Amino acid sequence: MVVKVYSPVYACPKRVIVCLIEKGIEFETVPVDLVKGEHKTPEYLKLQPFGFLPVIQDGDFTLYESRAIIRYYAEKYKSQGTDLLGNTIEERGLVEQWLEILFSSALGLLPDEKIIKESEEKLGKVLDMYEERLSKSKYLAGGFFSLAYLSHLPFTQYLVGPMQKEHLIRERKHVSAWWDDISNRPSWKKVLELYKVPPKFKYAGVQ
Amino acid sequence: MVVKVYSPVYACPKRVIVCLIEKGIEFETVPVDLVKGEHKTPEYLKLQPFGFLPVIQDGDFTLYESRAIIRYYAEKYKSQGTDLLGNTIEERGLVEQWLEILFSSALGLLPDEKIIKESEEKLGKVLDMYEERLSKSKYLAGGFFSLAYLSHLPFTQYLVGPMQKEHLIRERKHVSAWWDDISNRPSWKKVLELYKVPPKFKYAGVQ
Repeated sequence: MVVKVYSPVYACPKRVIVCLIEKGIEFETVPVDLVKGEHKTPEYLKLQPFGFLPVIQDGDFTLYESRAIIRYYAEKYKSQGTDLLGNTIEERGLVEQWLEILFSSALGLLPDEKIIKESEEKLGKVLDMYEERLSKSKYLAGGFFSLAYLSHLPFTQYLVGPMQKEHLIRERKHVSAWWDDISNRPSWKKVLELYKVPPKFKYAGVQ
Repeated sequence: MVVKVYSPVYACPKRVIVCLIEKGIEFETVPVDLVKGEHKTPEYLKLQPFGFLPVIQDGDFTLYESRAIIRYYAEKYKSQGTDLLGNTIEERGLVEQWLEILFSSALGLLPDEKIIKESEEKLGKVLDMYEERLSKSKYLAGGFFSLAYLSHLPFTQYLVGPMQKEHLIRERKHVSAWWDDISNRPSWKKVLELYKVPPKFKYAGVQ
């Protein structure tokens, strides 16, 4: 069964796709053009009644909310590809903790230039906590790569790319090394290569 | 081992406590007075470096982020007390989906009177989706009570109580019945009885 992922060019669907690649799960993508309002069509709303991205279809099973989707696949295919949940219930607990923290929340749901500027100081403080944590542990939730990092990839990419805030990462030695590590994973490089964001899209409507 | 839960009077720690009661897990509470800034003391920041609520200590294990905590206990004691995760991976996927959606996000992280007023229309639309979903299914994620509902309890209580927006719930037949159902669980009644919010606290600092 090939998994269908809707609207791969946006940040949150990329979280899902990098997970599918890490787990070695076959998928196909379905474009949804937010500029044309395709996320508000009756057909799309049948799949995702709130009109948000992403949504997946896996046979008869439909699921939305990117973090719910990545948890589902990490659990369904636990022993296939990269294990993204840790080995013990405590390790999983820490993965979940860092999956919830996600520093993009310091910037609100729809990061735009104005909000970013106002929130840069706040974000800096959150990254200081990351720095402290990463000085003691290779990854946030412990010594292993996990769901928590998949979830960080799209937003951090946006931060260092279009938002030109790479200095926030580079000023912090351990955060910088952590970003180099996770952003150089072949799965993430593949996602960036396959699904480029057309400039007209910006990040509107991405939850 | 008795679980220590910090600062039980606020909304997010209540999410944790109702979960511990549903699972039949012994706990004790540690007060943290936000008004006195006790969430910013060096001692508290050692437990929760971001200075947010809640945090738990379970022997040597410390965990924060209310949803990470409730997942941890739902999984650790899967066969004890109320099963909050569903029976299949697909059921769990839907629980996670509705745990992420959580309509309070329509109002921002710190609901205050001004934001609420501006967002009432937006919240109404989200509740319309809930109404649609609940017209087909007893609970949001399916026919069973789950983590997703625990997570809804504190915010909805705040909505129908101090915010005086009960009409948003009562105008919608299925949402209204769902709220009566989940808010009448003995575990939730016990939480409300045990941990009343002092008026001076309001909801500042609650994540």
